[in-house]
Amino acid sequence: MTTPFALIHEDLKQVESEILKSISSDVGLIPEIGEHIFFSGGKRFRPALLILCCRLFKPGDTRCITLAGSIELIHTATLLHDDVVDRADIRRGKQSVNALWGSAASILVGDFLFSQAVLIGIRAGDIRFLEILTDATKKMSEGEVFGLTLGHSLDISEAQYMRLIDNKTATLISAACRIGAVLGGAVPGQEEQLAKFGQDLGTAFQLVDDVLDYSSKPEQIGKPVGGDFDEQKATLPLIHALLKTGGAELQKVQRLFHKEKKDKEDFRAILKFITDGGGITYTLDKAGEFIRRAKGRLDDFPDSAEKRALLELADYVIMRNA
Amino acid sequence: MTTPFALIHEDLKQVESEILKSISSDVGLIPEIGEHIFFSGGKRFRPALLILCCRLFKPGDTRCITLAGSIELIHTATLLHDDVVDRADIRRGKQSVNALWGSAASILVGDFLFSQAVLIGIRAGDIRFLEILTDATKKMSEGEVFGLTLGHSLDISEAQYMRLIDNKTATLISAACRIGAVLGGAVPGQEEQLAKFGQDLGTAFQLVDDVLDYSSKPEQIGKPVGGDFDEQKATLPLIHALLKTGGAELQKVQRLFHKEKKDKEDFRAILKFITDGGGITYTLDKAGEFIRRAKGRLDDFPDSAEKRALLELADYVIMRNA
Repeated sequence: MTTPFALIHEDLKQVESEILKSISSDVGLIPEIGEHIFFSGGKRFRPALLILCCRLFKPGDTRCITLAGSIELIHTATLLHDDVVDRADIRRGKQSVNALWGSAASILVGDFLFSQAVLIGIRAGDIRFLEILTDATKKMSEGEVFGLTLGHSLDISEAQYMRLIDNKTATLISAACRIGAVLGGAVPGQEEQLAKFGQDLGTAFQLVDDVLDYSSKPEQIGKPVGGDFDEQKATLPLIHALLKTGGAELQKVQRLFHKEKKDKEDFRAILKFITDGGGITYTLDKAGEFIRRAKGRLDDFPDSAEKRALLELADYVIMRNA
Repeated sequence: MTTPFALIHEDLKQVESEILKSISSDVGLIPEIGEHIFFSGGKRFRPALLILCCRLFKPGDTRCITLAGSIELIHTATLLHDDVVDRADIRRGKQSVNALWGSAASILVGDFLFSQAVLIGIRAGDIRFLEILTDATKKMSEGEVFGLTLGHSLDISEAQYMRLIDNKTATLISAACRIGAVLGGAVPGQEEQLAKFGQDLGTAFQLVDDVLDYSSKPEQIGKPVGGDFDEQKATLPLIHALLKTGGAELQKVQRLFHKEKKDKEDFRAILKFITDGGGITYTLDKAGEFIRRAKGRLDDFPDSAEKRALLELADYVIMRNA
């Protein structure tokens, strides 16, 4: 098996056709925008987790495929709204919906996808699916609003930052795993383990993202490197590097961070500051810790192709460069 | 009874406390923004309809109160997103959330309210409620996107405009009535009649809004008069007045309508054009027609205090000046 997605390759193709069905509408702009955003190379990470967690208990289950599509709709709806919130012009290596069709379209198509995702859950008649999903979207919006209140401040503790990514990113990944477990018929203890697996995995996922935003190449991550720095978003690499900084150096970093127009020289300077301060290593170590913890959550599950794929997915999160 | 809301005055107070509960969050900005928007004088039109339609069948039912709160959350979520889409600075006589806290807060608190509304439906265990509600929000977002594709064009037919308001405004008002009917235990034929009552009422509601936007005073409607004109939104009064216009006059109106910065003189000129072209009278007549149709939908229901309140609500829609 070359990638952890190989085991469910055919299922993920079906997820694609579920998604395609979901974005159909008499209002032509909806499928147009939908196709732009869905077929520009998302990894389908959340659907894959949902399907694998379900198949741990029910090998061959196909009911999970529709709901796997639904969780990708939710994820995409949040991306569309985030792009407006962050004024992002680039997403997955293409111009964002926001940049191409304007923020109104980005907001409204996001709303459409959200309703459609809930509607799919309703038609599948699964109230637990709906509860887990909506509980997650509520927490995500709380996380996003919390992020707003932090604003562009550099005065953020690691604990505050971890709370932020816990809600913003890890919650939906955890929900994908929990929904899979519930669909598979897991007992409550197993459901809880898989939800924690997703939570740890999601946290690591975001931390690796934070590192890639400083250390990758644009063609790898599909958006400009240094985006967080440009948008004055403090992430763990910088927060950590700032810990032992004070006086004149702190003021210099603050000035750099809050500059409205930044150039390559500014980016090189902040990257040097972060690297010298151990911010990259620290964040990657922490991500590695979460991955180890995530994998440990699966200890009590018997060996199976699905379990192995989940473990490989966990490794993929830390090894990926995009 | 002085107003159609008097019969359910106490229930609407309970709806307020349900709403207050729903906007609580550890993230302080959410209740702060929530209180700003909820307690600046909404009419609670949709909750009132939901409760009255339920009580037609089940006098004294209280279960409907929680779900009446939930539909007001949805309505408010759409207002928050609309304010960003329309770049509106004023809402209900106060500065909009958008103007006070920025568009990011407006989008994200809207998302929070949407999730919370669905969650309330889930916890009430009512899958039909959820289906009607989400079907409505899906249609509303389709209507909004359709509105976007029409853009600032003046080349809109009456049929296109009626389709637009059918989705954007009437759908949620119809859903409120249908949900009330379902909660009350209506048989399918009765449910259908009440849904149509809401659809007609909602259409009239929007048409009266369109007229008030040209003919009211700012202190009455809680936002600047002429907002649709300022934002280059063609509504029925103007669409109708344009019907018999051509040549030089049409070009003059087009220039006026598409001016970026408009003054009082411009407004007076367009208002004169609309009034002379019969646009106000035509729209009010049409609204009156929809109200008569709406009231007719209730013919087969036996007389009751609730039925009388619904009929009065229908009259209120056409008589209101705010």
